[in-house]
Amino acid sequence: MGMIGGGRGSFIGAVHRMAAAIDGQIELVCGAFSSDPENSRLSGQDFFLPANRVYSSFEEMIRKEKELPEGERMDFVSIVTPNHMHFPPAKLALENGFPVVCDKPMTLNLAEARQLVQVVERTGLLFCLTHNYTGYPMVKEARELVRKGKLGKIRKVIAEYPQGWLSTFLEGTGNKQAAWRTDPARSGAAGCMGDIGTHAENLAEYITGLRISELCADLTTFVEGRQLDDDGNVLLHFENGAKGVLHASQIANGEENSLSIRVYGELGGLEWHQMEPNTLIYKSQSFRHVLRPGVGELSDAAKAHYRIPPPGHPEGYLEAFGNLYRNFAFTLRSRLKGETPNPLYTDFPGAHDGLRGLAFIETLIQSNNSDRKWTKFVE
Amino acid sequence: MGMIGGGRGSFIGAVHRMAAAIDGQIELVCGAFSSDPENSRLSGQDFFLPANRVYSSFEEMIRKEKELPEGERMDFVSIVTPNHMHFPPAKLALENGFPVVCDKPMTLNLAEARQLVQVVERTGLLFCLTHNYTGYPMVKEARELVRKGKLGKIRKVIAEYPQGWLSTFLEGTGNKQAAWRTDPARSGAAGCMGDIGTHAENLAEYITGLRISELCADLTTFVEGRQLDDDGNVLLHFENGAKGVLHASQIANGEENSLSIRVYGELGGLEWHQMEPNTLIYKSQSFRHVLRPGVGELSDAAKAHYRIPPPGHPEGYLEAFGNLYRNFAFTLRSRLKGETPNPLYTDFPGAHDGLRGLAFIETLIQSNNSDRKWTKFVE
Amino acid sequence: MGMIGGGRGSFIGAVHRMAAAIDGQIELVCGAFSSDPENSRLSGQDFFLPANRVYSSFEEMIRKEKELPEGERMDFVSIVTPNHMHFPPAKLALENGFPVVCDKPMTLNLAEARQLVQVVERTGLLFCLTHNYTGYPMVKEARELVRKGKLGKIRKVIAEYPQGWLSTFLEGTGNKQAAWRTDPARSGAAGCMGDIGTHAENLAEYITGLRISELCADLTTFVEGRQLDDDGNVLLHFENGAKGVLHASQIANGEENSLSIRVYGELGGLEWHQMEPNTLIYKSQSFRHVLRPGVGELSDAAKAHYRIPPPGHPEGYLEAFGNLYRNFAFTLRSRLKGETPNPLYTDFPGAHDGLRGLAFIETLIQSNNSDRKWTKFVE
Amino acid sequence: MGMIGGGRGSFIGAVHRMAAAIDGQIELVCGAFSSDPENSRLSGQDFFLPANRVYSSFEEMIRKEKELPEGERMDFVSIVTPNHMHFPPAKLALENGFPVVCDKPMTLNLAEARQLVQVVERTGLLFCLTHNYTGYPMVKEARELVRKGKLGKIRKVIAEYPQGWLSTFLEGTGNKQAAWRTDPARSGAAGCMGDIGTHAENLAEYITGLRISELCADLTTFVEGRQLDDDGNVLLHFENGAKGVLHASQIANGEENSLSIRVYGELGGLEWHQMEPNTLIYKSQSFRHVLRPGVGELSDAAKAHYRIPPPGHPEGYLEAFGNLYRNFAFTLRSRLKGETPNPLYTDFPGAHDGLRGLAFIETLIQSNNSDRKWTKFVE
Repeated sequence: MGMIGGGRGSFIGAVHRMAAAIDGQIELVCGAFSSDPENSRLSGQDFFLPANRVYSSFEEMIRKEKELPEGERMDFVSIVTPNHMHFPPAKLALENGFPVVCDKPMTLNLAEARQLVQVVERTGLLFCLTHNYTGYPMVKEARELVRKGKLGKIRKVIAEYPQGWLSTFLEGTGNKQAAWRTDPARSGAAGCMGDIGTHAENLAEYITGLRISELCADLTTFVEGRQLDDDGNVLLHFENGAKGVLHASQIANGEENSLSIRVYGELGGLEWHQMEPNTLIYKSQSFRHVLRPGVGELSDAAKAHYRIPPPGHPEGYLEAFGNLYRNFAFTLRSRLKGETPNPLYTDFPGAHDGLRGLAFIETLIQSNNSDRKWTKFVE
Repeated sequence: MGMIGGGRGSFIGAVHRMAAAIDGQIELVCGAFSSDPENSRLSGQDFFLPANRVYSSFEEMIRKEKELPEGERMDFVSIVTPNHMHFPPAKLALENGFPVVCDKPMTLNLAEARQLVQVVERTGLLFCLTHNYTGYPMVKEARELVRKGKLGKIRKVIAEYPQGWLSTFLEGTGNKQAAWRTDPARSGAAGCMGDIGTHAENLAEYITGLRISELCADLTTFVEGRQLDDDGNVLLHFENGAKGVLHASQIANGEENSLSIRVYGELGGLEWHQMEPNTLIYKSQSFRHVLRPGVGELSDAAKAHYRIPPPGHPEGYLEAFGNLYRNFAFTLRSRLKGETPNPLYTDFPGAHDGLRGLAFIETLIQSNNSDRKWTKFVE
Repeated sequence: MGMIGGGRGSFIGAVHRMAAAIDGQIELVCGAFSSDPENSRLSGQDFFLPANRVYSSFEEMIRKEKELPEGERMDFVSIVTPNHMHFPPAKLALENGFPVVCDKPMTLNLAEARQLVQVVERTGLLFCLTHNYTGYPMVKEARELVRKGKLGKIRKVIAEYPQGWLSTFLEGTGNKQAAWRTDPARSGAAGCMGDIGTHAENLAEYITGLRISELCADLTTFVEGRQLDDDGNVLLHFENGAKGVLHASQIANGEENSLSIRVYGELGGLEWHQMEPNTLIYKSQSFRHVLRPGVGELSDAAKAHYRIPPPGHPEGYLEAFGNLYRNFAFTLRSRLKGETPNPLYTDFPGAHDGLRGLAFIETLIQSNNSDRKWTKFVE
Repeated sequence: MGMIGGGRGSFIGAVHRMAAAIDGQIELVCGAFSSDPENSRLSGQDFFLPANRVYSSFEEMIRKEKELPEGERMDFVSIVTPNHMHFPPAKLALENGFPVVCDKPMTLNLAEARQLVQVVERTGLLFCLTHNYTGYPMVKEARELVRKGKLGKIRKVIAEYPQGWLSTFLEGTGNKQAAWRTDPARSGAAGCMGDIGTHAENLAEYITGLRISELCADLTTFVEGRQLDDDGNVLLHFENGAKGVLHASQIANGEENSLSIRVYGELGGLEWHQMEPNTLIYKSQSFRHVLRPGVGELSDAAKAHYRIPPPGHPEGYLEAFGNLYRNFAFTLRSRLKGETPNPLYTDFPGAHDGLRGLAFIETLIQSNNSDRKWTKFVE
């Protein structure tokens, strides 16, 4: 994988790299991490890349990687730049034979999107758009419930995505994430609705399998000085006659990242909340079932997207587990370099914790075999 | 990193590998993945390792890796075998100069644990025990709240870890995970209490900073034919006079992996549930605050263990995101090999989804600027 | 209190009677409980009323009660009929000097509503419309938070009221509640939106103190054969520039009675869910507080509407408590009549349960004073 | 009903009166509301009782009521005094032919309890002990699930009752509730465990139908100067071999009234939390069902204890509804007396709110029929 964008200071680049690394199937081999060559160079060092695979521009990367022998060159490109820089590298990569993973929204505007679809079709190359919320196992399960007819004919969809982080004029404080997202030149014609409203739209169509046929929108810019909408409320009509509401906001003060969807059909309804992603509620007037990975039989589609077999190891378990490894690696590296390790990272359980664990077990057994109420805990 | 155990059929090995990979700081370079050399060999292939770095036994691995030049040999060993095979490789690795990451409980029994502590102290090498639940950002925050005195003197601790997966005689059905966990020769003197009771004990001591001084235990084997406890209830006394209850179970039918802890002090209390790990409740008789990553100011300790900056991208976000990359990689690999991709893995958003996103945005803008109620959605 | 409607077979009549009885301030003294005189008569017996205070029509009730001496006649009228029978008795009662409590929506149509407002103003008598959801203590608290400026200027309101009970053609099955609610002659021009949409509207205006200035509605009748809307989605504009979404449904399959409201302002947001009515969430980007009766200081308005002082006796506590009294009363009455009590109602704790409680206490004390692990439980 | 105790300043007396009033089946006709005759007299006025039915002592009440003709005298006695004053009036009432409803724990000590059981048996009169938590519909449902064998043989019970209100020396501040509960002379040998531990014990035995056979207790008094336990942790053995944990606390800082119970059997488990009383979770390794009143078929026992038919009108609905009636009644009374009503109680919806509701409906219909996006809201 070669990455375009995602250098120091980027938010979503790190997410893409971590996401790509989890399964041990993808290796970051090169990158043009920033339009600033120095940032790109330093970022490449951060990622342990050899200097000759770190490029100053995406054009250079695509050209030089293409010249490398097969098996050595990158297998595909991952584009994690702001919206206005999606189309040029995506087109160039595809036209030079590289499959593409691209952040969303796909392009700056509809005209570019139409062009890109044509390039993808013409080249026949793989293209993946990171509407990441469709990756959750229980979203797969939700779609399967609809497909299997468990909800009957769909009547109503409520998709919502309230955030609150742009409740103030954050783009005026030097916040990089806020700045490009509220800048029409980099973000496109819509702010909030492009950034997160499209996720809600995508999720609604993904789960229901229905297409929006017409809509009625009320977009607002609440924060003074802001150039793009920071809130939107939309009525939806779907092709099959279903009705819907979609609302998204970045000024919903106190909300974190509350993407959620509810779908109601003739036979039942379902409910999924991104902030509790392992739970899918399937319900009707006569039952209310909670579906979760590992509890009963889920669809193959859901099972193929869940990594940790027994029930109840929640999403996030891996990341907490990863913290131990990372802290260990950081502390080990400091030691190897003869440096004092950062105390934040020396925080991992050690042999003495292990000793206490075994002493705990032994004391339990002793106490269990005793008629006396209390047994001393001895290491 | 060299791995001992964790070959095909293992549960926790994959967890360790994924956890180690997330941050791009650790590379799996060799392994002795199974006591069965063939399993080890095939597992090595799964992980894209060169054949000469895949070993038939941990002894061979430690011996041969030591002979490799520095910078090429593995930097540390990760031990992910059943409990009875923790001590021998850990001791051997340390004595040959390799730092160790080891699954818990640390050893088969207390005598081994005492020995291992001595080896760690003697060699002065890093040793990490994967009590992974202490890796959560909000567990760090909980400990900081206690340290800063926000709870006052601790009075009471309730630590619990109910699971239900061993409600039946699963070890009699060929289930590998159940088999070794209920076998005294491989698991040690305790079953449930060793496997998960020690996590609750570790978490209670970690967050409160208090040591258990004495206890009163009631362990039970409910499932007929089982050789070790599958349930335990314990009264605790802590050094400072605090009291506690610790209960764990693997026959709590319907429970998934419900590790939780509540701590009550003179000034306040806290509550954390592993199955909703991003939420820490801090409360007293006069307030009830919900602490979450990105909402207000958390401690440095918590912030150092959270990867995704803005609020509300929950734990698990990375894994869902990773599913898109994995599906893309699998499908790409199938294509490159000229094989038909597994339809389970071709499920990732593509260019047409991107086109619909941009069409959605354009229709929103159009509708917003119109006095007419409905605007057609045109791609 | 004299009641109009609410005889045998009515749903809301019983609710009004129980609600009026809780505080011991209101006595049901007479009624015209049904348009069917026999139903009225039997209902009066159910309520232990003397036969001469049970009337065949509301006209008769108002006329005859007016003739009774002051202090003996009813103090006010409670109207719990279907919508089309609100206006006539309300008008007649007021014009004869009786204050009125009336179920909502107030009248069958806007023209009647305007007339009734005039009658109320002309007579100067008290009139109460049972928009009951504003009666919750935490709704009062929510309104106070807005009034005190804790949210700053309001920007966005999401009010929703999904139910699922009319997902099928229930009115065709003889269900009385469904029948009148879906009949334009008795319910008015709107079905779902009149029945429950108006509650959402009322709650939004009540809490925010803002008035809706214009709206955009999409109403649907999903169930074949139904005469009125069973679903509606609405975009709202408020006087101060705030935007909103209001959606209500009676075909949201699997929903019970999920009225909820979220309000977002410049300084903070709030969230209240009727199905967990004792919890009000007050939040911003830097805090998330859970407000509950008895936890910290609430406003006088909230405190004046909560009956049970210490924290954590939830709403519903009274009703569970009441079940013991009711069962006791029913069983006692059966005994006094020499009848066999219905076993459903003999289920209340008795003296033997009390004995076990005291034995439990005594055993606890004994065990606590003992060094032995187990102490027998002896009654 | 005649009440003993429950005068001005009492907490639980008001609860009993409201609980007894809800269903319109029980009338308060007399009382000896306080050991202070003046308090009793004033309390009687509060409850609109004639002066000759308000007594100075329970002895006087029982004697004089007995002299009244049948049909006029009270039908039963309700005892709501502190624990030490349960036994004397209960015994006297029973021996004079009056059935008794009595608060818990039943008596001051086990000896009195044994005597009272004998009196109840000898007189053959009804006796109800207000273990009110067994009155919840979903507690009935839980017991029915156990009875029907849906959980299989019970293995483990976790009953807990954490409160935090006695985290400080509240009895030293003049708090009447704290004072008697921590005073051995009035409360008995146990503090926390008598006050609320017995509720947990009763609930565990009620739902499971099992009896505790032996136990191991660890009781603590954490708050300096306090005379009775304010915390207790207990291991339980049940007759059938089931094990259990019971813990209760009044120093669990930040807890409100968190009575909860979990029961695990061979076939399934269940979970109920008093603070969300309408939800019962029934689960196993292969399903997780949420049972609620009105959702699907509940047992007759549950249905007989739920007042409001359609799903989703939560417990507490009645109380919010009651607030409107109470406010109306208070305001009406002020008006009739020519006094200025307390503005806290003039807060109920009026005719203008009704007008807005109808205007809302009419605007919805108008907007729904229009092709224009916005329709003005006109009253």
